[in-house]
Amino acid sequence: MPDDSLIWLNGAAITQLPLPDRGLDFGDGLFETLLLIDAKPLYLSLHMARLDRGLQVLRFPRGVALIEKCLATACLEIAGKGWRYVSLRLTVTRGAGPRGYTPPREPEPRVVVQATRMLHDPTQMAAPAALGDSRIRLASQPALAGLKHLNRLEQVLCALDAREQGVDDALLLGQTGDVVSVGTGNVFIVRGDQISTPPLDDCGIRGTRRQQVMQCWAPALGHTVAESRILPSDIAQAEEVFYTNALYGLRPVAAYAGATWADHPVCAALFAAYMGELP
Amino acid sequence: MPDDSLIWLNGAAITQLPLPDRGLDFGDGLFETLLLIDAKPLYLSLHMARLDRGLQVLRFPRGVALIEKCLATACLEIAGKGWRYVSLRLTVTRGAGPRGYTPPREPEPRVVVQATRMLHDPTQMAAPAALGDSRIRLASQPALAGLKHLNRLEQVLCALDAREQGVDDALLLGQTGDVVSVGTGNVFIVRGDQISTPPLDDCGIRGTRRQQVMQCWAPALGHTVAESRILPSDIAQAEEVFYTNALYGLRPVAAYAGATWADHPVCAALFAAYMGELP
Repeated sequence: MPDDSLIWLNGAAITQLPLPDRGLDFGDGLFETLLLIDAKPLYLSLHMARLDRGLQVLRFPRGVALIEKCLATACLEIAGKGWRYVSLRLTVTRGAGPRGYTPPREPEPRVVVQATRMLHDPTQMAAPAALGDSRIRLASQPALAGLKHLNRLEQVLCALDAREQGVDDALLLGQTGDVVSVGTGNVFIVRGDQISTPPLDDCGIRGTRRQQVMQCWAPALGHTVAESRILPSDIAQAEEVFYTNALYGLRPVAAYAGATWADHPVCAALFAAYMGELP
Repeated sequence: MPDDSLIWLNGAAITQLPLPDRGLDFGDGLFETLLLIDAKPLYLSLHMARLDRGLQVLRFPRGVALIEKCLATACLEIAGKGWRYVSLRLTVTRGAGPRGYTPPREPEPRVVVQATRMLHDPTQMAAPAALGDSRIRLASQPALAGLKHLNRLEQVLCALDAREQGVDDALLLGQTGDVVSVGTGNVFIVRGDQISTPPLDDCGIRGTRRQQVMQCWAPALGHTVAESRILPSDIAQAEEVFYTNALYGLRPVAAYAGATWADHPVCAALFAAYMGELP
């Protein structure tokens, strides 16, 4: 482990997962990536709401007492370290079980927390990103759409595609060729007064910052955000493009498919609205 | 761990996985389930061929030296235990890595082997199974279809559905409503001289025993097997239904959707052909 990362299992400073674990065996679990500033998680209730929806869909025990305890333990230790900006990954698995897909009748979920000290300052808008294309398309799976579960091979392959192209991230399309997201966040385009983002009924992850853009930051600036079908050509022709995730907040896009964007006034204004919410 | 199970990590008797591991974080890996008789894996070359295809698609390092070494270590110890029938799960993950979806440029894959002593005798055809329906449909993902990767939430949900219905397994449909498989194996139906099984171009796992049925056992009995579209109603109306996996070989279906089957002559004959291949 590098010095700037800490791991806890079920709230103890344990960096080994007892085997078997259904999280490893089947991706039978969920995760959240939280931004912490001065050891305080941002938008915790949004993360916990998504996690809870996931627990329900995967038919996990719903009690989140262990999760909250593990998070509190981590935050206390991070505060002690004095780390200003931290990316915290919270993983919940269905724990151990007998051989095979069928979970135990009374699973004992496990919680892994990994805290990584961040190298960049998330209160400064990140440098505009270059986007490429991913060869992998997201599978259509309405039953799991929106959730942040552990079955993330598509995002891994997308990340490999982005690296091969020497870009920061890549556009992820659905099976029909519509844009769903980028590999690490939800995507938005600006055309005139209109901000649009793809619907996520078939695939993709419902991001916490996506929700904030739609419900808070864009309305505060007098914009409305429509969920609408977006094609890759719409991206290239947009006046402005940006994407959102917990770590960047909002990140402007500088280049995609030959198009370039030098200015990002809407993204910058939304980022300012985001900053206005920070303590 | 129950006494009838053993676990190795990278060939050592270690039952803890160092964190982080991309297999846990993203399901970034593959697995195989092998049947061992007297410590010898059956159809090893078929399993290794599928695993190798998966390593290629996921862009893992292709060398399988570690995998073969881990398997050899496990088999030696199983032989020492004198366990006659063993289910062996071989899991390959992309190992550790920095935060985020992007794999390290030079990943160091890890191999987890879990051997479980089997309670049933796999050389006897299993009791006919009752099948139910799963609420989850398999996502369409041609890029990963056929592979046995670690993203298996759909099978977990299918297993939960089967347990709720009090049946042995459940039919898994694709997004269009066609039959793809059951939760734990590939499905076949018999109509007259014709044996059919669903194509697996969009989703599902290409089973080793499915391949044996199609290429060896059915032809040896004068049957041909067609890959063809199968609807749930085709299952209910078939003369005979069975499914295949590494542990059962072939298992007849006794009941689905109100239909029942008392005799399974084709499945029994194929099972006999399978037995004829055993050492």
